[in-house]
Amino acid sequence: MDERGRSRFNRRAVKVADAQQLILEAIRPVGVEQVALWQGCGRRLAQTLQATSDWPPFARSGLDGFAIRGADAAHASPEHPVTLQVIDAVAAGQVARQRVEPGTAVRIMTGAAMPEGADAVVMLEQTAPAGLAGQTAVRVKHAARPGQNVALPGEEFRCGSAIAGPGTVIRPGHIGLLGTFGYAELPVYARPRVAVFATGSELLPVAAPLEPGRIRDSNSAMVAAMVAQSGGEPVLFGRLPDRVDAVIEALTAALAEADCIITIGGVSVGDYDVMAILLSEMKRNHALKSELMKPKSQETLGQTLEPSSDPVCFSKVLFDRVAMRPGSPTSAALLNGKPLFALSGNPGACYVGFELFVRPALHRMQGELDPLPRPLEAELTDQIRKGSPHERYVRCKLILNDGRVFAEPLAFGKSSMMASIPQADGLLVVPSGPEGAAAGSRVKVLPVP
Amino acid sequence: MDERGRSRFNRRAVKVADAQQLILEAIRPVGVEQVALWQGCGRRLAQTLQATSDWPPFARSGLDGFAIRGADAAHASPEHPVTLQVIDAVAAGQVARQRVEPGTAVRIMTGAAMPEGADAVVMLEQTAPAGLAGQTAVRVKHAARPGQNVALPGEEFRCGSAIAGPGTVIRPGHIGLLGTFGYAELPVYARPRVAVFATGSELLPVAAPLEPGRIRDSNSAMVAAMVAQSGGEPVLFGRLPDRVDAVIEALTAALAEADCIITIGGVSVGDYDVMAILLSEMKRNHALKSELMKPKSQETLGQTLEPSSDPVCFSKVLFDRVAMRPGSPTSAALLNGKPLFALSGNPGACYVGFELFVRPALHRMQGELDPLPRPLEAELTDQIRKGSPHERYVRCKLILNDGRVFAEPLAFGKSSMMASIPQADGLLVVPSGPEGAAAGSRVKVLPVP
Repeated sequence: MDERGRSRFNRRAVKVADAQQLILEAIRPVGVEQVALWQGCGRRLAQTLQATSDWPPFARSGLDGFAIRGADAAHASPEHPVTLQVIDAVAAGQVARQRVEPGTAVRIMTGAAMPEGADAVVMLEQTAPAGLAGQTAVRVKHAARPGQNVALPGEEFRCGSAIAGPGTVIRPGHIGLLGTFGYAELPVYARPRVAVFATGSELLPVAAPLEPGRIRDSNSAMVAAMVAQSGGEPVLFGRLPDRVDAVIEALTAALAEADCIITIGGVSVGDYDVMAILLSEMKRNHALKSELMKPKSQETLGQTLEPSSDPVCFSKVLFDRVAMRPGSPTSAALLNGKPLFALSGNPGACYVGFELFVRPALHRMQGELDPLPRPLEAELTDQIRKGSPHERYVRCKLILNDGRVFAEPLAFGKSSMMASIPQADGLLVVPSGPEGAAAGSRVKVLPVP
Repeated sequence: MDERGRSRFNRRAVKVADAQQLILEAIRPVGVEQVALWQGCGRRLAQTLQATSDWPPFARSGLDGFAIRGADAAHASPEHPVTLQVIDAVAAGQVARQRVEPGTAVRIMTGAAMPEGADAVVMLEQTAPAGLAGQTAVRVKHAARPGQNVALPGEEFRCGSAIAGPGTVIRPGHIGLLGTFGYAELPVYARPRVAVFATGSELLPVAAPLEPGRIRDSNSAMVAAMVAQSGGEPVLFGRLPDRVDAVIEALTAALAEADCIITIGGVSVGDYDVMAILLSEMKRNHALKSELMKPKSQETLGQTLEPSSDPVCFSKVLFDRVAMRPGSPTSAALLNGKPLFALSGNPGACYVGFELFVRPALHRMQGELDPLPRPLEAELTDQIRKGSPHERYVRCKLILNDGRVFAEPLAFGKSSMMASIPQADGLLVVPSGPEGAAAGSRVKVLPVP
């Protein structure tokens, strides 16, 4: 199929995995910044952070009760309680003034430092007050053993051990640990700024009333939301012009402030598919490296641009066709070293192109080492009838039930069907071939957020 | 167990599910605000939004090719192509000037409105250019049928049908749909402002060097991160004073600007557990409704406060003990109608208390109808030996492998073990009883973000 389209722009399909590798090899993190500890959640750590002390830093009581010498109460029981003289009380944050000698106890609160001499804590609920020769005393009613309810120094962490390494997505538990070790600020990878453009003269702004034959540009907002979800900062640039020279100007302007560009639409074989024309021009330029610094022909580009301001001069097309459905015209290039993703304008294909290529790229730009979606195995609930010469990505629901993982295909076969996109939990991978997939068969699913 | 603690503050344990119901019944959404379309992602919709037109709004071509009358090419084949006269071209956004009559075709781009008379689109790749009596013509090489590659008006949505209802968490796919129907702004539930306090004189600020017997307040930052993760806006208030009267003053001040208060620590049976003392005072006040407007006794509260500024006067304790491990002293109250959560100061118990009670509450404050974590079934990888008189929540990893769901317990039995909190995917529910749970047995897990 597609012979005309392929020959028109000399487009050769690469496999999804190869396309992903081409992107990941070309991309570097955009930078590092410091954020307040709690604001690091969801960001990616930019360096290895270590324990700055042993943890706990001192022997700590695990609960409220009495610090004792375990041997003193080794045989205590409700019937034969052991009575100990209470010589001090220590709250969390304090240090006991008295040493625990045989026959004595110190009242202690959760988290307080153990007094010298004590090696066990008896919980308050296993004691009763007692009078002993006019002094304060406590009756221990349960057998104790040395070490009980005491956390020893270094039990959880040794000073210098790694807490988390570069690329780690920071979770609340990391925040707790890093706060414990005194990290009031965290070095995290900066958020990439991502310019989002739509193409197509049929597009109206979202706020505009409908006109005959025209539709609203809803993809830009969807993609902007996905950029933000991926940790990027979207900048909506609206609609690209229809002429290639004006497109180059718009992309050049965007490159000055963005780390990455996403265009939506105009990548197919239509007569007005401006991104397809531009990518084809880029490939021609790349093939003619020696002519790179010459102005482009008036005919193709419409006007002469200064080469230094023209990203087409310093561009490299990574791929301009992918062996997949939907979204086979999805393309990627580097413009002055920054990634350009040209997604399909069809909402379903745009969505799949983002998940397979853009989200991993944005995560890599934030230092994630292994940003590709990890497939999981699931049992297919419904037959997928139609085969395809290309690997197919079918939106699906993931159902965890009765200890098993099920994938339920959504709106199979209609990549334009927008209604089911919000319901999708994953992309079900249907291998290329004439057969589709049988109900009950094992399939691979790429989870989506 | 716990006889002394229970009797001291007259605390009666409620079941987790009952505690959750008490919270959810007491909480209302905090308000509604408008946000730009793409910024609605992850927020919760505050009203039902409907399709504002049929979708598609007109008959659209699904791809690039030629709009024809399907009957004209019903028997076309590569060997016997059908030649049609090309009378017009229509790009997306345009409306064809010509009607397609038998024997004619209109060049059409993806997404363009179908010309009158045409009922099918033949893809460009299944055609070849042809000359017909000096005019432009096209050779159709594959059989066509009426309706092929055409999306009919209203095929996906009927005008007025609901797209999403109140409380729906907005995903990128919703953004796309809502943009299609012209929603440039979305009504979403406002983010609750959440005051976070820590208690305990042992606590140092995160940035401070360690001192003997003291530790840094890392829980506040962890909880702030969890608040933000739950859609709330955390405000870190630092350490609460140690005296109950000063605590009341601090909470009163926080109530003026926050929709919810979280305190961490000081809820147990220790002599300095200021939140436990305060909650006990609240319960006493509530029991003596007729005395509500009287100043509190000097003895307990340290100083006389104006009743109108004193949230203890207008408070109701929802629960001050939960039948669970860890975190049994976890408490909740209403202060002037706003929720107060008093979490345990132990990091593991603080974490569990947040997931079971605070996260659902914050989601409900943002209009979510069913905010409780939904348990899923998993197969336990390792034996959990020790039983417990209370239901236990053990942090675990969730592993989806080979189409099955496995739960691997983490750091079992040590609620203070912070090291494993960042690794947790869920809380494994071990029912109360003497036995624990056997490896390979089916367990319930509450997923955590």
